[in-house]
Parts: sequence; C-alpha cells; structure tokens
Amino acid sequence: MAGSTFGKIFQITTWGESHGSAIGVVVDGCPAGLPLKEEDIQVFLDRRKPGQSIYATPRKEDDAVEILSGVFEGKTTGCPISMLVRNTSMRSADYSEIADYYRPGHADYTFDAKYGFRDYRGGGRSSARETIGRVAAGAVASKILERLGIHLTAYTRSIGPVKIDPARFDPSQIRQNPFHMPDEQAAKLAADFLDGCRKNGDSAGGVVECIADGMIPGLGDPVFDKLSANLAKAICSIGAVKSFEIGDGIAVSRALGSENNDSFIPCEQGIKKATNHSGGLLGGISDGSRLLLRAGIKPTPSISHPQQTVTRDGQPIEVSVRGRHDPVVVPRAVVVVESMTAIVLADALLANMTARMDGVERFYARRS
Amino acid sequence: MAGSTFGKIFQITTWGESHGSAIGVVVDGCPAGLPLKEEDIQVFLDRRKPGQSIYATPRKEDDAVEILSGVFEGKTTGCPISMLVRNTSMRSADYSEIADYYRPGHADYTFDAKYGFRDYRGGGRSSARETIGRVAAGAVASKILERLGIHLTAYTRSIGPVKIDPARFDPSQIRQNPFHMPDEQAAKLAADFLDGCRKNGDSAGGVVECIADGMIPGLGDPVFDKLSANLAKAICSIGAVKSFEIGDGIAVSRALGSENNDSFIPCEQGIKKATNHSGGLLGGISDGSRLLLRAGIKPTPSISHPQQTVTRDGQPIEVSVRGRHDPVVVPRAVVVVESMTAIVLADALLANMTARMDGVERFYARRS
Amino acid sequence: MAGSTFGKIFQITTWGESHGSAIGVVVDGCPAGLPLKEEDIQVFLDRRKPGQSIYATPRKEDDAVEILSGVFEGKTTGCPISMLVRNTSMRSADYSEIADYYRPGHADYTFDAKYGFRDYRGGGRSSARETIGRVAAGAVASKILERLGIHLTAYTRSIGPVKIDPARFDPSQIRQNPFHMPDEQAAKLAADFLDGCRKNGDSAGGVVECIADGMIPGLGDPVFDKLSANLAKAICSIGAVKSFEIGDGIAVSRALGSENNDSFIPCEQGIKKATNHSGGLLGGISDGSRLLLRAGIKPTPSISHPQQTVTRDGQPIEVSVRGRHDPVVVPRAVVVVESMTAIVLADALLANMTARMDGVERFYARRS
Amino acid sequence: MAGSTFGKIFQITTWGESHGSAIGVVVDGCPAGLPLKEEDIQVFLDRRKPGQSIYATPRKEDDAVEILSGVFEGKTTGCPISMLVRNTSMRSADYSEIADYYRPGHADYTFDAKYGFRDYRGGGRSSARETIGRVAAGAVASKILERLGIHLTAYTRSIGPVKIDPARFDPSQIRQNPFHMPDEQAAKLAADFLDGCRKNGDSAGGVVECIADGMIPGLGDPVFDKLSANLAKAICSIGAVKSFEIGDGIAVSRALGSENNDSFIPCEQGIKKATNHSGGLLGGISDGSRLLLRAGIKPTPSISHPQQTVTRDGQPIEVSVRGRHDPVVVPRAVVVVESMTAIVLADALLANMTARMDGVERFYARRS
Repeated sequence: MAGSTFGKIFQITTWGESHGSAIGVVVDGCPAGLPLKEEDIQVFLDRRKPGQSIYATPRKEDDAVEILSGVFEGKTTGCPISMLVRNTSMRSADYSEIADYYRPGHADYTFDAKYGFRDYRGGGRSSARETIGRVAAGAVASKILERLGIHLTAYTRSIGPVKIDPARFDPSQIRQNPFHMPDEQAAKLAADFLDGCRKNGDSAGGVVECIADGMIPGLGDPVFDKLSANLAKAICSIGAVKSFEIGDGIAVSRALGSENNDSFIPCEQGIKKATNHSGGLLGGISDGSRLLLRAGIKPTPSISHPQQTVTRDGQPIEVSVRGRHDPVVVPRAVVVVESMTAIVLADALLANMTARMDGVERFYARRS
Repeated sequence: MAGSTFGKIFQITTWGESHGSAIGVVVDGCPAGLPLKEEDIQVFLDRRKPGQSIYATPRKEDDAVEILSGVFEGKTTGCPISMLVRNTSMRSADYSEIADYYRPGHADYTFDAKYGFRDYRGGGRSSARETIGRVAAGAVASKILERLGIHLTAYTRSIGPVKIDPARFDPSQIRQNPFHMPDEQAAKLAADFLDGCRKNGDSAGGVVECIADGMIPGLGDPVFDKLSANLAKAICSIGAVKSFEIGDGIAVSRALGSENNDSFIPCEQGIKKATNHSGGLLGGISDGSRLLLRAGIKPTPSISHPQQTVTRDGQPIEVSVRGRHDPVVVPRAVVVVESMTAIVLADALLANMTARMDGVERFYARRS
Repeated sequence: MAGSTFGKIFQITTWGESHGSAIGVVVDGCPAGLPLKEEDIQVFLDRRKPGQSIYATPRKEDDAVEILSGVFEGKTTGCPISMLVRNTSMRSADYSEIADYYRPGHADYTFDAKYGFRDYRGGGRSSARETIGRVAAGAVASKILERLGIHLTAYTRSIGPVKIDPARFDPSQIRQNPFHMPDEQAAKLAADFLDGCRKNGDSAGGVVECIADGMIPGLGDPVFDKLSANLAKAICSIGAVKSFEIGDGIAVSRALGSENNDSFIPCEQGIKKATNHSGGLLGGISDGSRLLLRAGIKPTPSISHPQQTVTRDGQPIEVSVRGRHDPVVVPRAVVVVESMTAIVLADALLANMTARMDGVERFYARRS
Repeated sequence: MAGSTFGKIFQITTWGESHGSAIGVVVDGCPAGLPLKEEDIQVFLDRRKPGQSIYATPRKEDDAVEILSGVFEGKTTGCPISMLVRNTSMRSADYSEIADYYRPGHADYTFDAKYGFRDYRGGGRSSARETIGRVAAGAVASKILERLGIHLTAYTRSIGPVKIDPARFDPSQIRQNPFHMPDEQAAKLAADFLDGCRKNGDSAGGVVECIADGMIPGLGDPVFDKLSANLAKAICSIGAVKSFEIGDGIAVSRALGSENNDSFIPCEQGIKKATNHSGGLLGGISDGSRLLLRAGIKPTPSISHPQQTVTRDGQPIEVSVRGRHDPVVVPRAVVVVESMTAIVLADALLANMTARMDGVERFYARRS
C-alpha cells in the first residue's frame, strides 16, 4: 500500500534511500504560473544540511537539488515537479556491520519483519535523508503560501530539559544559533547540555514548534480532513516524532472550559479571538488566528553508549553504534516540521476553493 | 474536497448531522465472510450513548443501529456495509438562539467562514453525534482484529488534574465507573472534581489512552503511512482532541537516548523488546509489542459560565450556553478513540498483506 | 480495496443490494449553498424506474428518495449528502433457485470466485438497482453543471441493429418514446425488433450517447486524469457496458490525420474548432466544444431462452432464467450514462479551480 | 488536482516533459523481494523506442533507464522504485515556431486554456515521451504478473483500413515486423498503405489489442473499481486513444442475448466458459478466461499536409507541421497498452488479497 504519497491536491511523492544513488520527490498538483527556481529549493535544503556544527553529524552532504520537470521559463507549468538530490557522501562500509543485528530504537527489526530483508545501508528508507524530498516539496509549498500572505516560522522549543523562555523570544536568533532556538540564552544552555550528552556517548530529544501567521479562515474540512488531523499525520510521519500538539496541546486536558475557550471580540476586520488557546483552529477548521503546533522528538537512537540487542538470528550481543550521527536531531528537524506544515496548508488552501457554490460560480464567471 | 472518508482498504465514509433525520456510515472494503450482526454494532454504540450518568448529557438517545447492506446470512459479503441510526431526540428549539452568535470553542464561526452559512442545530456536522458513524465502523474493525488475536483496551487516563495510578490499574473497573477509569479511587476523585465544575457552570478535559495487545509486527508503511502517522490523523480527527502521543509521547523530548532506546532480547518466539518506550512501533511500523497511544481532550466548550462573544453581524454579547451538555466528554470519547484505533489497525493489516512478493505468491498458489 | 467510491473532490460512495432493505449513496464534496430538494433527485430516479413500458421489467419500484443529511433550509451545507431509497418490491423467492447455479452473462460465478459466497437475491450488489445511487448523485452533479451553463443530453443511439438517423434527430422525442431515442421512426423500428426478441425469449443490446453543451475549456488533467480517462472509467463501471468511445471513437482508427484533425478558426469568443471529430477534448482536456461520448451495452443476460451452465458444485444443467427482466436495458441506462458523465464533469470543474496560481490568488484576494 | 498518479496499491507517479532534462516514474507499493534489474526495464523501453523503422520518427533516443531507488542486492525492497531516463535528443529549436500557434489535433490550445501558458517544446507534458514512465512501470508490473503465471501479449490489430486476419494469427510475427502485427501479410499491406500516407504528408490511426492469459478469477471489484473500468481509464489515459473495448466490445450492441452469453461448462479445473464474448470478465470481475481489450488510436496529428489554424492571439494561419514525427503511432503504442494493462492487473492482484476474511486469517496464521 504505497505510503510514499501525501496530500490530495498539492500531492507529493518521495523516494530514495540514504545510500542509494539519489533521493527525491515529485510534486504534483502545484498550480501553474508560480515562479520557481532551484535556489528557492536549495535555501530550504541548506537548512536541513548536516555538518553545520559540532552538534550535528560531521557528514558532508552537498545536497544540491536539480529540478527535472514542471518548470518552464522560470514558472511552474501545472505539471509534476520532479526534484532530485544525488547522494554523494556514501560510505556504505560504515554500515556493513549493522546488517547483522538490530539497532535499538531504529527500524531495522521492523523492516525485516515486514519485508523479509532490508537495505541496511544507513537506515535505507528510514534514514533521516528521506526528509530531503519533504523539504524540497515544502519549499514549493512555502512559495504558494507566501503569495497568499501566509508566513511560517519554525524553531526549537526545547532540547532535553532546556526550554526557551517566551519572555526572551527573539526570532532573529532562530538562524543564528546551531539549535535554531529563538532564545540566545537557552541555546547556550542547550550547548552545555549536549556537550554532556556527547561525552557520555548519549543523545537528547526535544520539541519543535511551528507557527503560521496571516492565516486564512476556513482551511480544513470537517470530520477526517480537519486541518489538525492532516497536520497530525504530516508531523507524526516524520521519523522520531512521538507526540503532536496543537494550540495549548497536552495542557488542555487539565484546563477548565472557562479558561480554555477563546472569546470572540469585534475588530476592524470584523471579528477575532481574544485569546488563542485553540492554536488557530475551531472544529478542525482554521479561524484566521495564528496556527501553532508542536512536535515532540525522541533522542537520536544511534548512540555509542553500549546497548543490548540481538542479531538477525536471535543471538544477544552488546553494541555501540558507531558512525557519523547527530547527538540531537531536533535542530535539523525544524525545517522538516516547517515543510510538512507548509505542504498541509498549501493543500488545504487549494481544497478550500471548492467549498462554496458562490465561489465556484464567481470563479467560472470571471473566466468567461 | 470531501473529507468524510477515511482509510485506504478498510475505508469508511460517515455522514449526518446532529439534528438531521439520521446519521450513519458506509464501510467499504471489509473482507467477505466476517460474521456480523446488528448487536455487534449496538454494543459499541451503547458505550458512547449519553444519559448514562449525571456526568453526561441527560439527553436520551436510543441510537439503535440498522444494517442496510453488505451482510447476508449473518456474514459480510465484501460489499459496502451501510449502517444508519435515526436521530430521535431532536429538540431543535434548544438551538435556535445560537443561530445568531458564535459559541466560543465551537466550530460555529469557522463553518460560517468556510461555507457562508451553517446548520446551527446542535452543532450540525461538528456535533459529537458525528462519532456514531466512527463507532459503528470501529465495531466492524474490532471484529476483524479479534479474529487475528489483536485486542484493544481504551480507558480514561485522566480527567482534569485527576490521573489514574498505574499501581492501582484494574481493567475490570473500566466499564464499572461512569468515567471508564481503570482505577476506582481515581474515578471517585474525578467525580468530586466534576461536581465542582458543574456547580461553577464549568467543564473539564482529560486524556484517553488506548492499548492494543496481540499486535502483529510489520503493520504500517515507511514514510507517510507510518502506523503512527495514520493513528495521529485518526485520533486528531476526533473533535476536541488537541494532542496525540505514542508510547512515552511528549516525555521522550526530555529523555536521553540511553534511557529511551528499547533493547532487543531473545525470547521463545525469537525476539522481543526489554522495554516499550516506543509504544509498539519502530520507524512507524509495529514491532509486535503493545501499542500504546494517548489523546488529549479539551474541556467541553458548552458551559453555562458567562462568556464574551459576538453575533454573526459582529456585535459583542455575553452568552451562557444552555442545553443538555456533557460537563466532560472524555468518558464518551473512550469508545471513539478505541474505534478509530481499530479502523487504522484493520486497514494496516489488510494493506500489509501485499508487502512481500513471497506472501503474494503463496497467497495465489494456495488458491489454485 | 473498497471500490464503491468514485471521484476526487465531488466524491460519491454507493451502497446497497437489489434485495437488501435499502440502497443509497453518500455525496461528499458538494459545494455549500447549492439549492437542492428531494424532487430534484426524484426526477432523475423516475427516469430510470422500470415498469414504464412493456419493454422494461414489469416490477413496480417506487424508488422514493429520502435526503438524510447535508441539506439545510433547502441548500447544501458542504457536508455529505446521504440519500436513501428503500427496496419495496422484493420478491426474494423468485431468485432462490439461482442460488445454486451460475447464470451465463451474470456475475454469479465471479462473485463466488472472489468472495466465497454471494448474496444471490436478484444479483445482489451486481444488480442494476446499484445504479440508483449513481443516478441520485448524478442529479446533484447536474444541478452544479446547470448553474455553470453546462447542459447534458443523453439518449439511445441504437438498439440491436436499429440506429437513429442524424437527419431525423429530434431531442423532444427523447422522453416521449420508451426507448429514449431522439428519432420517432427509429423508436418504432426498435419496438418491432424487440417484439421479435421477446417472442424468442431473447434480449438485445445497444448504444447510449451523451453530449454536453456549454462546456468550459480546461477541464481534465494531463496524463492519468484526462477527462476522457475519467469518463471512460465512469462509463465502463456501469454494468453491461462493453465499449467506450469519445468523439468519432472507434472510427478514428480508420481515418487519416488530415480528415481527423479539427482546424481552429477565429470566432467572436476568440477561437473555435471548425469540426469536432475529437468530441470536445484535446490531450484529454476539454476544448470548449461539445463533449460527445458513447457507451456500448450488451444484451440483457437474463433470457428465458434455454442456456447451458453449471451448478455451484460443477454439474452441467440447462436453465431458462425466469423472473421480471428487461428485454433491453439500454433505455434505462440512458440516465445512468448521463449521471456518470455529470459526476465526472462536476469533479473536473472543481479540480480545475486549482490549476493556476493567478486563479488561486484572485480567489483569496476576493475573500479578504 | 494532480493527475500524474495511477493505481491504489501498485501505484505509479510519472513526471517529465518531452524536452525537459529527464523523464521518469516512481513506482510505489511494489512488493518486496521481486528480482529487478535495469535490463528488465530497458527491454520494455526499447520496444517503444522510435527510430526503428521508416514508419517511426527518425529521432534517435537512447532512453537508457537508471533505477535510483527501491532495489537492493537485485531485489525490490518494498520502498518506492524511482526510474529516470535522461532526454538526450532535444532539439528545441524545431519547436520554437509552434509556440505561437495551436497545432490542430494537439493539446496546445487546451494547455494554454487551462494553465495560461505552456511548455511548447515538443508538446511538453502531452508528448508521447510521457509514456516512458508508464512503460518503465509496466515492466515492473509485468515481472509480478509473470511470477503468478499471467502472461500479456499486445499487438497491432489494424492500421488504417488494414486489419489482421485471425486465420493468419502468428504471435512470432509481433516483434518481427515494424508494425507489431501478428500477421505477416497484413504488415506488408500496412507498409503499402503508410507509404501512401507519407507521400501525401498524411498520417494514419489503428487499433491495438492486448490479451492476458493465465488469468486468476476474482480480480477487480464490483461497482467503480471493476477491472474493466480501471482498464478503461488506464487505456483511455494514453494520448491519442479514442475508444476502448473489452471482449466483443462495440459489437455486443448488435448481438442477441442468446448469442452473447457465454455458457459455463464443467472442466478439469472445475468450470470454464464455452465461449468468451465477455473478454474474460463478468460483472467487471475476472472469470479466469482470457482477458481481451482493444484501444482505438487516432492518426498522428502532426502532419505536413497544410492545415488551417489560429495563432495564440487569434489570427488565422495555414500551417504544415514539420519536425520528426511518426506517420503512425500505433506500433509504438503497443507496449504502452500492454504496460498499462499490466499495471492495472498487478494492482488488482494485490487488492484482491484482502477480499476474504478466510484469506486474511490464513495469511496471518502462516506468519505466526
């Protein structure tokens, strides 16, 4: 059952393994006439590139994107946009030993259980490199959002026990520290914390937050295609994500109705909410206020710290995973979370155009 | 863009509004030959029925299900199973006044923003009655799971600040107290807490947990159709759900890799995990251990406590939502969370049959 | 794998068997604000009703439709429209004997082969009554088309060897003769021909043609969702259809390029085609000229003429199918072909709204 | 609305334009463990390669395929198989003049109408080169079919007025003459006929037939996913196809029921049909007998014969399409029809595994 395609109208299909010859994505359903060039994509890919600090894997990956189709004279044509990144830094030898045992916290065992064998090189399809396709597609989606005045900001909210302080929130910091934290002081504390992890051959997790400003009300559909439901799927489909929250998220379970309900108040544009506990949605449909979501990410499973596991033939062994691994994947996940959010929003924006008969009639009246 | 259909192989389509003449679901893709009778469905529907305690809306809803198609001589035929419940307890007059203003925390405003008008009677399509279709379909999915030895248990983990104590976990309690809590003492504390809420015209939220035992490894697909991603969508598509967790969930963001990784150890059946922080999945694919997920549910937005809001034409007013409402929806959401989990698992079980060529070859060899 | 859902945005799900308690359809994705009442649907259903002439089955079927959801105050709400028709003329006893053998030309054998058993009453899910759901949905789709100035006309082009004469084409005849032929003389010849068939316990096939005027250019997508491809699937999914043609259809295989190409010429609206061999499409996308398609329908397989077949346990027997059957299904298929065409066009109209970025930008600019 | 993805379980997504840098396909949902190498694909691509006779375009296209993902150690991994062919013979200059007018019979006008502009180089996405992705995917599908004993044969049934004679049917001829006709004499007559066309700057159409032997009964689903419906869509999505027939096809409209019904008779394997007018299907589900379908293909629209058309700004002009074009595309379409048929069958085979509960139970019993 496939599983590599996401979205209904703005629809992406990713492909590729960590150590195959290339990795990529096909974006189908992007409206025609959107200005797009490889640099637009590259900017996004560079944000997920490893090797940018001592807190990320020292692998050198150029990840230069090539647009193979769907763009003509600098604009999208309405036809599928195929984008490809060659894998250039493959050292398969690093992984040969893991062919024979199941790394704890990795998909080695489940791939074997499902498929009978696996491409063990660097995690194959379950590698974080799989997100290259998502990010390239997210760059395209973001171009659509920008033209409609919707702007996304994603950042690291916490690493291990170190959380950003809302009082020190500084968006300019996001791309200035290696953790993409909008709080300089928290970033320093995170660095100290991660130094400790690395010394112990250990790793850490954290939380990524993404907000969308300039939201258009009416996005998302009742019941199964609630915007929140599609965002939940998008975010939880990212490897290592173990929780998803929208608005106040997990905290609402302890709130009272009188605290949690957002009052409506009149405003210049007509109506707005006095607060935004709901994170920009009501009944799963965007209400025009800021969208806010959170992804909880587990610690990198590849640690040099010794662990118990078994070989493919069931023998117990102690392993210490070597190789070039991130002590924390959270900072690199920031652009992935942002990309998946952008993809869901672009899809919802297109879908919403067909929601009302008067909108349909005006659309076709204008053309004739 | 539709949005009322869920699943790929085991596919459900729900329909109906709170105060229309009926509400229902079409289940398509259910394998032929599954024994099924109306009582199987009714048992599930009765678990979500209101009017069962003072902590739930005193509306009397019979919610008697009728199977209209897809079953012949007591077995499913492989053709769509259409199930219908008549709405019998409709007092539309209760809702006439809410036609003109936007209830805080409800989808009134967003439906208007999206569609230009709305069926304001009892929330229309955004009413909790919409879950009748999900639960009826979940009953069918559960029959499939049972035959494969997979058993689901869902229960209330917390209501407001009152959480169950794992040390007192008693599954027999789940259907014995009105909160479906597997901890008698917590249920009593929850009753006290909710009494306070009701006195203040307020409401509470909570957390529902669902576990699946007897899991088959290999369910779910890499990338976008990870079992965790599809569960996230399923759960977050339920009205009032604001967070989703799998396994240790939100807590993993603060854990170390060495704590969070589950070691593999040999066992009689071959191999198992020593712990289960991951909640039964690795790389989004089931690993055979217990599946565990959590849904964070917001407080009921309908409260008699006075609230600020605006009318449809933008005038500020103070409202106090009257009508027959649950002070907490969490207990009634238990069977909905279980149903959506069952639907995702049934779909994944069917999809997984096509994952391996040797499985395909054996399947067709046997038939010839 | 389901199979009872059709369409991407305007999406329908049908359910029900010939002799179950009811039959119906859920239409999801219909834009909000479309005026709709049960009479709109009933008019379409009445066109497929049997018992209207001696050339159709004498079964009396009221086929009164009930709209159960998705309509409020006379307009669609954007939520799923569930429609139901009770089966009132069920005489299951008529069919008891066919439980044990495979009727030639019917789906008895293939249902058993696929599902292991079947609902043998009146063909179950493979009965022509299954089209009730299609026609009800087609009535909704037609309402959308009408508002955009697109008008469909379907009729019988031929019955057995009797073909309409384009020189005598008279649309007013379509609903005046029992064969829905736009040619009075051909209708008389068809009556004679069918009288002969009936005397011999035999049956006939024919061709249904459907045209759409007022077409909007740009409908359909390149590659797999060509308008022609989706129409082909829609039409060939109707039971008894064995061929599909668009424009000149099968005849183009013998034409020369210089004959078959349609020249473009200037016109008041800008540009039009001098001829329309292509049937209103180029590259699978509508070109604004008249859409024309044809469905070739096989003779009714239920004949009293003796036939050889086998029982479920493989014993040869001679059978003569009794019961109330149409000697020709072509006239009743006319409204089904029109309905499926309407559904495909409505879906394509909605999908096309997202094709261009300037259209998307104008759409959202207008709303703010 | 996308439109570049086809299939539900065995799902393909094609991309690329005639004169972009490359063209390709992603095959998702192929079972793991299928032996696959680039030569398997190349064999299929070579069958559609132009430049093989004077009756096909003299363009030299190497069309060397590269498998970029989804295959490890010579076997499919269950992950998406990305295949790419570089466009090496691009002479965009040939097409610069057609940027300004609408070629009759081509998609130039409809692409402009839909998208506002178009990639005019060689037809862009509507070029016959788009079929490279289909054929590469068809090669994979065929490997699956072969392992289950299903064998496809496609060939040219007619070119213009020249039809093969069933009495002279010789499958060994199919790959021996440039028209892929299984009748040596017909091939010679076709050559004569096409010589005449070429002299007049004209072109011809024809019919491609595809048969499948070794069919498994039970493939396809009732209602919308009838095997015949999915085949109709698959075939009619191929550019230039204007008709689709299954079994006796268009001829059934003139047959009597007593002629057209296929009797069942006992046989060694249990049961078979005495004749096969239905083309291997009953009720849209395969019955185990030979599948037979036909695609009617229009004459190549690019002809040097002078034609009337208009420029993009509506001025009438006379044009004579130059460039390297096939006088007939039928022979090159043979492998495309076969590929699309293979893709539909592979998808149906996988989908059918979930049709019966006893099959599901046996499948999972075997694994435990």
